[in-house]
Amino acid sequence: MRMANRMSILLFSGTRDKLTSVATLSTGAVAMGMEVDIFLAYWGMNAFRKSMIGTNNRFDKDFEDMSGTLAKNMQAKNINWLENLRKAKANGNLKIHVCSTVADLFEAKKEDFDPIVDDVIGIGGYIEQAKDAAITLYI
Amino acid sequence: MRMANRMSILLFSGTRDKLTSVATLSTGAVAMGMEVDIFLAYWGMNAFRKSMIGTNNRFDKDFEDMSGTLAKNMQAKNINWLENLRKAKANGNLKIHVCSTVADLFEAKKEDFDPIVDDVIGIGGYIEQAKDAAITLYI
Amino acid sequence: MRMANRMSILLFSGTRDKLTSVATLSTGAVAMGMEVDIFLAYWGMNAFRKSMIGTNNRFDKDFEDMSGTLAKNMQAKNINWLENLRKAKANGNLKIHVCSTVADLFEAKKEDFDPIVDDVIGIGGYIEQAKDAAITLYI
Repeated sequence: MRMANRMSILLFSGTRDKLTSVATLSTGAVAMGMEVDIFLAYWGMNAFRKSMIGTNNRFDKDFEDMSGTLAKNMQAKNINWLENLRKAKANGNLKIHVCSTVADLFEAKKEDFDPIVDDVIGIGGYIEQAKDAAITLYI
Repeated sequence: MRMANRMSILLFSGTRDKLTSVATLSTGAVAMGMEVDIFLAYWGMNAFRKSMIGTNNRFDKDFEDMSGTLAKNMQAKNINWLENLRKAKANGNLKIHVCSTVADLFEAKKEDFDPIVDDVIGIGGYIEQAKDAAITLYI
Repeated sequence: MRMANRMSILLFSGTRDKLTSVATLSTGAVAMGMEVDIFLAYWGMNAFRKSMIGTNNRFDKDFEDMSGTLAKNMQAKNINWLENLRKAKANGNLKIHVCSTVADLFEAKKEDFDPIVDDVIGIGGYIEQAKDAAITLYI
């Protein structure tokens, strides 16, 4: 088995802080010539629905007393996770997949998602990508 | 060092959405001939207590406005994470371990858990399994 | 590519249950001769600020009905995640890094953190460490 120069992210969560963290990881990995595969499930998947884009202002509730400061600083620095993912995609090898099982569970179709989403694939596709990735993360 | 064809999951959380995600991952990995080791800690461990089985209806609070729809769809599709884990175990090489440090912290014993749990092991056992796994996830 | 005998943790969260989990993982890995690198971001980073040390009593809100028992047992057993990390550091090869992008976002400087923090590094530094680690976790 040879490990690919790949970062594999299973994105379960869809809070703005975690989405921004995913954008930073993707930007960094792409800049270093890595292939990045993001597999969207549950709330991470819902964050990429056209109907959610731009209206998602949720942060991790465990830290809601501090998230006002974060939201303010993110706005002041003009940080937009989706635009940063678009730039990472334009600059390198980043692919975003929707989990077909979860899409089915939420009755979502390919056309319901922002066009940054590449395809809808099964859990087997995720495992194939993850099993020879150098970095595997569940976020 | 040779990487084993193994998925190693450290399950910290015990919400129904994450438990269902773990069941999907385990089902897929086992179907592809991978060995799966799940190491239960904290709230993930508590979700496997006999006293919790069947009564656990918690979802990720960050998305509670959307979890009603998920719960309804999971019921309509008859999705039961524990039964799905049992099927994965019957079909392949899935082992479920309880973290001994956490069991001690919650004063839980082997017999307090659903029989799907294989054993109670130390952190060293987890690390041995994880360090040559192809996929390592903290959920 | 040769995998290093390293555990790489990206610590996003800063709840006491997850911080204790990180301390247990680090203690175990160091005892087994592994190198451990913890990369602090968002709420995990804030938990290491001098101003937060000792006052952080937050637990995962998804399980707040059970966290009282956990807090009581942690106190009875005298479990302190930061002191346990200090011991792990004294006993082996544990390094704690702050993510420079996140430090910038929260306007935090090296001197704002507990001295257990080794340095402030960029996302590229994290990826370099993670990509040849045997275990990669996002917590």
